[in-house]
Amino acid sequence: MRDVAILGIGLNEKWGELWDKSLRDIFVEAALHALDDAAVDHIDSMYVGCMTGGMFVAQEHLGCLMADYLGVNPVAATRVESACSSGGAAFRQGFIEVASGVSDLVMVGGVEKMTDVSGDEATHALSAASDMEYEAYQGITFPGLYALMARAHMHQYGTTREQLAHVAVKNHRHGAMNPVAQYPFEVTLEEVLGSVLVADPLHILDCSPITDGAAAAVLCPLEMARKIAKKPVVRVSASAQASGTLALHSRKDLAWLESTVRAAEQAYKMAGKGPKDLHVAEVHDCFTIAEIMVLEALGLVERGKGGQAAESGMTALGGRIPVNTSGGLKSKGHPVGATGVAQIVEIAIQLRGEAGARQVKGARVGLTQNMGGTGGSSVVHILEAC
Amino acid sequence: MRDVAILGIGLNEKWGELWDKSLRDIFVEAALHALDDAAVDHIDSMYVGCMTGGMFVAQEHLGCLMADYLGVNPVAATRVESACSSGGAAFRQGFIEVASGVSDLVMVGGVEKMTDVSGDEATHALSAASDMEYEAYQGITFPGLYALMARAHMHQYGTTREQLAHVAVKNHRHGAMNPVAQYPFEVTLEEVLGSVLVADPLHILDCSPITDGAAAAVLCPLEMARKIAKKPVVRVSASAQASGTLALHSRKDLAWLESTVRAAEQAYKMAGKGPKDLHVAEVHDCFTIAEIMVLEALGLVERGKGGQAAESGMTALGGRIPVNTSGGLKSKGHPVGATGVAQIVEIAIQLRGEAGARQVKGARVGLTQNMGGTGGSSVVHILEAC
Repeated sequence: MRDVAILGIGLNEKWGELWDKSLRDIFVEAALHALDDAAVDHIDSMYVGCMTGGMFVAQEHLGCLMADYLGVNPVAATRVESACSSGGAAFRQGFIEVASGVSDLVMVGGVEKMTDVSGDEATHALSAASDMEYEAYQGITFPGLYALMARAHMHQYGTTREQLAHVAVKNHRHGAMNPVAQYPFEVTLEEVLGSVLVADPLHILDCSPITDGAAAAVLCPLEMARKIAKKPVVRVSASAQASGTLALHSRKDLAWLESTVRAAEQAYKMAGKGPKDLHVAEVHDCFTIAEIMVLEALGLVERGKGGQAAESGMTALGGRIPVNTSGGLKSKGHPVGATGVAQIVEIAIQLRGEAGARQVKGARVGLTQNMGGTGGSSVVHILEAC
Repeated sequence: MRDVAILGIGLNEKWGELWDKSLRDIFVEAALHALDDAAVDHIDSMYVGCMTGGMFVAQEHLGCLMADYLGVNPVAATRVESACSSGGAAFRQGFIEVASGVSDLVMVGGVEKMTDVSGDEATHALSAASDMEYEAYQGITFPGLYALMARAHMHQYGTTREQLAHVAVKNHRHGAMNPVAQYPFEVTLEEVLGSVLVADPLHILDCSPITDGAAAAVLCPLEMARKIAKKPVVRVSASAQASGTLALHSRKDLAWLESTVRAAEQAYKMAGKGPKDLHVAEVHDCFTIAEIMVLEALGLVERGKGGQAAESGMTALGGRIPVNTSGGLKSKGHPVGATGVAQIVEIAIQLRGEAGARQVKGARVGLTQNMGGTGGSSVVHILEAC
């Protein structure tokens, strides 16, 4: 297998409710930025991460569509889906294709267009990431599922309502420095605690929003990147993915993300790194409780201690390991198929030293963790500055 | 890159309207058959080809779901979508993963559950394989799109209505020998010509049906297969994919499948074979005109001569190159996400000499061609007996 590097990255200009742009428009915008950044005039192959173009805009066949509108056919173009970890899973396929030697220049994009439907329809579409027959058809939606996980975590470890809120406060503080973010403003602890209740204990400011957005990256062999790169080269030193039970009721422990544990174990082994070697991380904070549980699964804190991380400042800019410097899903937005690729983009920005006000000084090693559903699948990547 | 082989294959017992089984049931049935056939007790990774679990049964996150119900988590499990070529595209990802050295035993399954919705809803869901904004929203559905292609072919090359019908007659004759087939019976030329008109010149018996079905294969390195295989080993000597324009109106020639031409060129080069070396092929006959155009794109007949192939007997069992011995999409059925994998299964059955009454004598080299939409994407594989 060949070593793999990131040659270019891109996002569409602004995430949010983009009613004047279609699915293909926002994808192509991000992809063109990535091609410009990579300074290449062609690609050999393409992956598109998207959760449900079908349920959001009645459009499947997304590899073909995006290759066509990006003007790169006849290259092979494949859509990858793994619910909210579709972007991360797509990136992993790009990694494997470059590592294998099948292709040199591979574009990986992620996209979701979520705001063309009503809130009820969006909630239904997102439910397709859970076990439709045993969970969603019984009436539970994602805030309810994560509320169950939060209650279990509070019961087992004494995690507090305030600790959940601290995650939102921190990520909005980071996101306020990110011009792409959907909600680039700070929120106070009181505002989070006093916001509308969605599914006890989760309030609206514990939840990531519905977002239109896209992200893209261009991958190539590390050796090639060293020769042609115009920007600092970022090495993909680990790419790992694992699955767990789809439905919450099948889990031994509602407060433990087994698939993230497994993917992280593989990733650390592949990169020859451990949690202590990381300088920055982007993790899947679809709800505040998710970030808390992910920190534990990644081994960044002890099991049960995730609630203390944001509260203590450990995961804030300036802390031991800044988490979600982009603002995370919470403030930057969560176009589900794009999120995993956007996490990679943020870590690459950090490792290239281009993060401006939100730069983590001296960041050389970063991690991304992208999760589908309530953790039924997880994808972990480790990136390093070269 | 490592050489790749097929270690095991499986289908669910019967394709058709399976109202007593869910999406997960039929997938697991096919996957267990493939594991039994491969005689292995574990896999390292899994791919699931499915076009639109979202629009048919409101279920996405299909890698996770199927790994969970097959009992193989925590392996990485990824869903791949490329409209009606989702199965072929998934198989290609499995091929790349084994070739790269990332994994040894990779399961590739394909599945679609299409009959739980009304005919109108199924037609709408399938339209998501076309350009929704520029084709489907204007009112055209797939029979209409292929009717345009058929009219163009008739106009340019003098292809006749009877020649289209001969494709259906041949494939039903083959399918009558396939116990898995949804419609395992013969039809006469008169029956095809006299069947209900759907979109002139295509009648109902020119169209593949709506089907529930699944197919699976287990891949591993060729070297490993030679050591552990209990069944004859089938080598995957080429795996190629290409994209074309999504919408028909963007094409220079409505009667020419550019993406299949490109994928076939790559596949022939990779395998070191040409059209004359093939003994058997499974191609994407979603409509009778599709098989005619695919034969031309694959170079099995001259451009414009595809209409004569079924009529002359060239592509029937006993002819120069039997095409769609399984019955094809027309008679066997077309569960869109499963089709590409099922084509691989049929060619493996032929190369292993297990096809019974429909066996192509002495078949050593076979090809599969799987197509998305009106040919916006194509995947071509070449398989060889070892």
